[in-house]
Amino acid sequence: MIIAVDGMGGDNAPKEIIEGVYKALEEFGDISVQLYGNQEKMQPFLKQHERLNVIHCEEIIEATDDPVRAVRRKKGASMVQMAQAVKDGRADACVSAGNTGALMAAGLFVVGRIDGVDRPALAPTLPTIDGKGFVMLDMGANAEARPEHLVQYAVMGSIYAEKVRGIQNPTVGLLNIGTEEKKGNDLTKAAFPLLKEAPVNFIGNVESRDLLNGAADVVVTDGFTGNMVLKTIEGTAMNVFAMIKDVFMSSTKTKLAALLVKNDLNGLKGMLDYSEYGGAGLFGLKAPVIKAHGSSNANALFNAIRQTRTMVEYDVTGTIYSTLKKENPND
Amino acid sequence: MIIAVDGMGGDNAPKEIIEGVYKALEEFGDISVQLYGNQEKMQPFLKQHERLNVIHCEEIIEATDDPVRAVRRKKGASMVQMAQAVKDGRADACVSAGNTGALMAAGLFVVGRIDGVDRPALAPTLPTIDGKGFVMLDMGANAEARPEHLVQYAVMGSIYAEKVRGIQNPTVGLLNIGTEEKKGNDLTKAAFPLLKEAPVNFIGNVESRDLLNGAADVVVTDGFTGNMVLKTIEGTAMNVFAMIKDVFMSSTKTKLAALLVKNDLNGLKGMLDYSEYGGAGLFGLKAPVIKAHGSSNANALFNAIRQTRTMVEYDVTGTIYSTLKKENPND
Repeated sequence: MIIAVDGMGGDNAPKEIIEGVYKALEEFGDISVQLYGNQEKMQPFLKQHERLNVIHCEEIIEATDDPVRAVRRKKGASMVQMAQAVKDGRADACVSAGNTGALMAAGLFVVGRIDGVDRPALAPTLPTIDGKGFVMLDMGANAEARPEHLVQYAVMGSIYAEKVRGIQNPTVGLLNIGTEEKKGNDLTKAAFPLLKEAPVNFIGNVESRDLLNGAADVVVTDGFTGNMVLKTIEGTAMNVFAMIKDVFMSSTKTKLAALLVKNDLNGLKGMLDYSEYGGAGLFGLKAPVIKAHGSSNANALFNAIRQTRTMVEYDVTGTIYSTLKKENPND
Repeated sequence: MIIAVDGMGGDNAPKEIIEGVYKALEEFGDISVQLYGNQEKMQPFLKQHERLNVIHCEEIIEATDDPVRAVRRKKGASMVQMAQAVKDGRADACVSAGNTGALMAAGLFVVGRIDGVDRPALAPTLPTIDGKGFVMLDMGANAEARPEHLVQYAVMGSIYAEKVRGIQNPTVGLLNIGTEEKKGNDLTKAAFPLLKEAPVNFIGNVESRDLLNGAADVVVTDGFTGNMVLKTIEGTAMNVFAMIKDVFMSSTKTKLAALLVKNDLNGLKGMLDYSEYGGAGLFGLKAPVIKAHGSSNANALFNAIRQTRTMVEYDVTGTIYSTLKKENPND
C-alpha cells in the first residue's frame, strides 16, 4: 500500500511531518510512503529508508492562499502533486496537514468524487466524555446541503465508523434543535424521513448539548451548522479552561490547589483536544484523503497515517461506492 | 406602569413567581402588577398589596402542551389571559416563565406583531468572560430566516442594547463560520451587504468561538443556528464542569485541592449561568413580552420584571416601530 504525504503542509512542517512518516514506516511494514515537498527544506530531517520515496516540489500552497485558485494555479505544489499521484493510481491514499480549503479543492478537482456522492464531506472524529468519540459530518466542506446529501453523509459516516472505528451497527443521529421528528428547519424536517429509510441505524434527532455525552456514533448535519457547532465547542471549552486558570492564579490558596490538580486537569484538556483524534477524513472521494490538524506534531501525523492505512485496508471508498450504488442503481 | 405576570409558569410556580413579584413591587414604586393564575394554588403565598391585582384563571398551559394548539384552545389559561390584557391595553407588558413555544404563540397571536416586523425573535442576553454580556437573536422563535429578517433582528437588538443595556452605539455582528465577507451559507452571504446598509453599527461576521469573549454587543443569526449554538455552549460548559468535578473527586490530593477552590469555581459557574441574566425578550411584538427562564427563582423573576419595566420606560417597542418605519416608509 502506497500513501502519499504532503511534506510541506501544517504549522510544524516539514520536521514533524517527516518524523511522523518515519514513525509510521517503522510501525507498519506493509506501507510505502511518497513524500512530496521541497527537497532543500526537507533535507535536514531526511534519512534513507527503503520504503520512503521523496519527490521534490517547487511550489507550496500557503495558509493564506485562496484554496480553489491555489489548487488550479500551483500545479507543482506538494499538495496538488500528492493528489495527482492518487488520481493517477501511483498512490492509494494521501494525507496533508496543510490548508483545509485547498485540500478539499485538491480532493474534489484532482482526486475526484465517487459516482453517487454529490458532495464530499469533511468528517473529523470528535471526543466524548467517555473517551469513545464519534464521527461528525459535514464539518464545512459545503456550507449548504440538501436532504439527500445528509443521507449520503449518514451512509459514508456509518461505513467509516464500522470499518475503521470497529463499531458494530453504529448509531446515526441527525443534529437538530429538538428531539421530536417535526422539529427543526426545512432541511432537517425533510431529511428525517429520508434517514428513516436509509440503510443506516438511524436513531432520530440528537441535540448539540448531548454531543459530548456520546449522543450517536455518527452525527450528520450541513457544513454550516457542523462548522458552527465545532467552533462553539472549541471556543467554549477553551474559555472555560482559561477562566479556571484565572481562578487558580487568583490567590496563594488557589495556587496551592493548582499544584495539586495540575496534572489531572491537563489530562482533561488533552481529552478534549481534537488534534489527538487523528485527522478528518474527506469522505466521498475516489480514494481516502485525510486532513491532519494544522498544528499536527509527529504523533498526530502518525495517527493520521494509521487512519489512512485502515481506510485503504478495509476499502472504505469501495464500500461507500457499492452501498450508494445499491441505493440508487440508476445513478 | 402595569406589568402582567403569569403566576403559573415555570418549574417553581407559583411560589417563587409570587415572591419575585413582591420583591419587584417593593423595589419599584412606579409599577403595578396583574398576577394571573389559579387563586387556590397561589393563595398560600399571597398577601395584600395595594399595587397587586390577582386575576383568577382556571386553565394552565403545561410544559408538554403543543404550544400553538394550547394558546388557541386554552383561552382561560393564565398565559393567554396575561397576553390578552396587554392586547386590550389593560397592561403595558407581560412576563412568563412558562412554556417558551406557548409564550411565543401567545405573543404572536394575541399581542401581535409590530407593523414592519415580519417575524418576532427570541433574544436572550448571554454572558461573556468580562461580565458585559451580549444580546443574541434569534434563539429559536423561527427556525428559518430570510436575509431581511436578520436586518430586522439587528435593528431590534441594537435598540434594546442601547435603551435597556445602556450601550452607546452597540456593535452588531453576523454569526458566521468565517470572518471574511464572502464566507458562509446562502443566508449569511445575502444578509452581509444588507447589514452594511442597515441603520446599525455593523462590524461584520463574528465566529461562534469568539462569542464568550464579547465579539459584538448584538449578534444576529437565524433561529435554528442560534438555538443550536446556545445549546452547544450550555452543553459544553456543563460537561467541562462535570469533568472537572470528576477530577477533583478522584483522589485525596485532588479532594484537598477542591476544598481550596470550591467557592471560586462556583462563582465561575454562576457567571456562565444564563438564568442570572434575566429573561429573554420576544422582540417585534406590539408590547414587551419577556420569557423568564423555566427554572426561575424569585430573584430571576424579579430581574425579568426589572428588565420589562426598563423596556416600557424607554419605549423599546415604539422605537423599533419608528426605526423600521423610517427604513421602509411604504410598509
